[in-house]
Amino acid sequence: MKIFLGADHAGYELKNVLRERLHHAGYEIEDLGAKTLDEVDDYPRYAYSVASRVLGEEDGAAVGVLICGSGQGMSMAANRVNGIRAALAWDKISAVAAREDDDANVLVLPARFVAPEAAGDMAEAWLQAEFKADPKYRRRLDELEQLYG
Amino acid sequence: MKIFLGADHAGYELKNVLRERLHHAGYEIEDLGAKTLDEVDDYPRYAYSVASRVLGEEDGAAVGVLICGSGQGMSMAANRVNGIRAALAWDKISAVAAREDDDANVLVLPARFVAPEAAGDMAEAWLQAEFKADPKYRRRLDELEQLYG
Repeated sequence: MKIFLGADHAGYELKNVLRERLHHAGYEIEDLGAKTLDEVDDYPRYAYSVASRVLGEEDGAAVGVLICGSGQGMSMAANRVNGIRAALAWDKISAVAAREDDDANVLVLPARFVAPEAAGDMAEAWLQAEFKADPKYRRRLDELEQLYG
Repeated sequence: MKIFLGADHAGYELKNVLRERLHHAGYEIEDLGAKTLDEVDDYPRYAYSVASRVLGEEDGAAVGVLICGSGQGMSMAANRVNGIRAALAWDKISAVAAREDDDANVLVLPARFVAPEAAGDMAEAWLQAEFKADPKYRRRLDELEQLYG
């Protein structure tokens, strides 16, 4: 599974830390920016890049990780894209639940709220979790696609 | 300002508690369901109802509050609707920041993670907060509309 990574200026430092950690843990990662620390690097363009690349791969072959200060902007932006299910998580339990129950294909991390090591633990736990193919979870995802698709 | 409220089965109890609290605090509230506690009340339809009603009012005249177990389903669903900026908050600071920085017009509460009184405090703090009309925040919201409009 491939991981596309993106961050605005507020998530830039955490993105770099996380990229190295996940790379050393053996994951295939592509860093879609920001490439330098610049105050005018706003979240919408990075959410859009990551969402597009995740959807460009075969279903389930890629996921995204997006980072901004509070996570809200990235979550708002990424979830606008049909087919993206972006989960803003604030701890390991919420990250894992988002994958198991909601089949989240993008994890959003709030850099101003979680420390780098905790964020890395959350990302690894999320990547290792699997969607529970329970009929009720599947029914909700189908309803999501039907109503908004 | 009018508040449209919605919840799935997991958020049903908290929705009712919150409705009474906000009503007593003087807010105008419309409860769009679930009207009874039923396991097959899934989040997408309530997110859709609340999003539609918020967008049906004049800009800024209404907001929404959505509740499910983890908040992820509601956040994924509501944010698919262009014009909705739904913030999944886990404490008062994250709730207020979502309004001040991202002009969130929907607050999403995770009923399995926050106790009813804390959720009420979060909702009231969010309702009382105001978008900071800083050019950088406005620029990001404009970019969100342009990229995903």
